[in-house]
Amino acid sequence: MAKVALVLIDGFEETEALTTVDILRRGSVEVTTVSLTGEEVVHGKHGVDVHADALFDEVEKGSFDMLAIPGGTTDYTEHEGLLDWVRRYDKEGKKLAAICAAPAVFGKAGILKGRKAVCYPGMESWLTGAVIGQDIVETDGNITTSKGPATAMFFALRLLEILRGEKTAKDVEKAFLVPLIRG
Amino acid sequence: MAKVALVLIDGFEETEALTTVDILRRGSVEVTTVSLTGEEVVHGKHGVDVHADALFDEVEKGSFDMLAIPGGTTDYTEHEGLLDWVRRYDKEGKKLAAICAAPAVFGKAGILKGRKAVCYPGMESWLTGAVIGQDIVETDGNITTSKGPATAMFFALRLLEILRGEKTAKDVEKAFLVPLIRG
Repeated sequence: MAKVALVLIDGFEETEALTTVDILRRGSVEVTTVSLTGEEVVHGKHGVDVHADALFDEVEKGSFDMLAIPGGTTDYTEHEGLLDWVRRYDKEGKKLAAICAAPAVFGKAGILKGRKAVCYPGMESWLTGAVIGQDIVETDGNITTSKGPATAMFFALRLLEILRGEKTAKDVEKAFLVPLIRG
Repeated sequence: MAKVALVLIDGFEETEALTTVDILRRGSVEVTTVSLTGEEVVHGKHGVDVHADALFDEVEKGSFDMLAIPGGTTDYTEHEGLLDWVRRYDKEGKKLAAICAAPAVFGKAGILKGRKAVCYPGMESWLTGAVIGQDIVETDGNITTSKGPATAMFFALRLLEILRGEKTAKDVEKAFLVPLIRG
């Protein structure tokens, strides 16, 4: 079973974080939500308090196939342990994903040089060295990035396709009723 | 400030519940998440544990402008206190909203006769007496219903428009990046 660590810090964007957890788990991906705050309960940007599955210090960093970072705040860029985790996964060719403000973490970690990436419109200066993409979700090698709350379901479906293949992603897309909003 | 009670029961659909909370709070609506289980921590359908703001027995039922019910499970239809709350609000002309499986609560409460409503495709037999609508979000008088996870943001934006007007809804829609996914 594919394993994903999705990190949470106070101020995380609820739709981006939890739509991603929802869609990946619908596709039988094992998602572990990891608190970066030292506390089990993490406070979302719009007042939603969520119980993380594990604390940062407890998890075996090497045990996941993908590290995913929702947006909502640039505080993620201040967490040195997260920056080390990102650099390690990039070096090992493991999968990395971030949306909205969170691609800034990849910029600060120095892994975006010459790679296509997107983020919340107006935050592109954080993506040091990146080639700014045009799509709502961009995948360049092991790195997938996306723009913001409304694009979260498409971001999550892309991650599901990468981890579990096109058929699983299409099945979840249909059950989630995505075809109804695509005109 | 407009006040909304959004009820949570074990098995609630995370994207539907929390995208709605997210968007309404972005629009300065005061949302109270209300646990129907007697416990403060409510367990989502895809393993997300959320702290509700209040317990059902604690809240003053008359103090809200709208009662909103996310989907994920028909267990909501078994909660007699919720059915009473729905019937009371309908009688008082207060606003009611439900998405996915949850319009079944309105069907069981007997408030849909001759009114346009939608739900998750295939569950229409729960909407006793309703005229089944065609749009992803339908508003008929005080009752707004919608189809499922992918339509949750449009459902929430409709509720915001009803509660706070078109300008606020448009501002939040733009910040949420909805225009990027509408082609």
